[in-house]
Amino acid sequence: MAETQFVIEPSRQDIVITRAFNAPKDIVFEAFTNPEHIPNWWGPAEYSTVIESAEMRPGGSWRYIQQDKDGNEYGFRGVYHDVVPNERIVSTFEFEGVPGHVALETVVFTEVDGVTTYNGLSVFQSIEDRDGMVASGMREGFSEGMDRLEALIEKLQ
Amino acid sequence: MAETQFVIEPSRQDIVITRAFNAPKDIVFEAFTNPEHIPNWWGPAEYSTVIESAEMRPGGSWRYIQQDKDGNEYGFRGVYHDVVPNERIVSTFEFEGVPGHVALETVVFTEVDGVTTYNGLSVFQSIEDRDGMVASGMREGFSEGMDRLEALIEKLQ
Repeated sequence: MAETQFVIEPSRQDIVITRAFNAPKDIVFEAFTNPEHIPNWWGPAEYSTVIESAEMRPGGSWRYIQQDKDGNEYGFRGVYHDVVPNERIVSTFEFEGVPGHVALETVVFTEVDGVTTYNGLSVFQSIEDRDGMVASGMREGFSEGMDRLEALIEKLQ
Repeated sequence: MAETQFVIEPSRQDIVITRAFNAPKDIVFEAFTNPEHIPNWWGPAEYSTVIESAEMRPGGSWRYIQQDKDGNEYGFRGVYHDVVPNERIVSTFEFEGVPGHVALETVVFTEVDGVTTYNGLSVFQSIEDRDGMVASGMREGFSEGMDRLEALIEKLQ
């Protein structure tokens, strides 16, 4: 299984994430964006994810709700600035549990020799917001999500 | 006339802008957000501004077109993540002349003793994007826009 790579430099407001998938980019994009697939990979497996909205187009909105085993709910939401199928998504991201802290997320998919790389960039409103996201266990949760996405992509091929 | 203050620190991805207006925040917000008013203050006076859309609500889109005296057009666009009347706007910003470079903009209005301060934060995808925006003459153009906004606010009172 591939590894998810994080670049988190001190005193910066961003996180850079890359992950390679052994599949063409239309399949990776389909797995990444289709609302039917998202609950099967988004975040750690211990949470169930309900897609309240996923209007995957410029100006569309998204809201996902994660639920833990005790029934606690955690909402996440944002809007899409750009959606270029198989290529690029630019959107906002906010965890409703800590409202008022918004990140700008850019995802670019690049394919070379049948291997598609997810190139993610998250930019935060402050270094403290960025560091708080890292401290919350983002790396572990995101890595698990990417592993689940890889398993899903293998099934879709 | 008040001054527009910029904080642009080296090696950061953001620009912080503050400007005080001698008016209550509902009037400042009205002048700042009403599409009828925006062409009268948005950017330098040498450009005319046409509001193609300004859906001032979470999930809404905006697109403005500036035109210079020779008829050249410059498009700007984004989406709104948050709009809290009189309080706060979080949105994306892209100059279509340099596509693919998106900023996250946060504006918070605070009122003390009848003076409302515009607190702006622009976060860019890279330090280079931020520096490029500064090199483009953003400070001068934005300051002129804020001076025009002040004149408009005086008229509205």
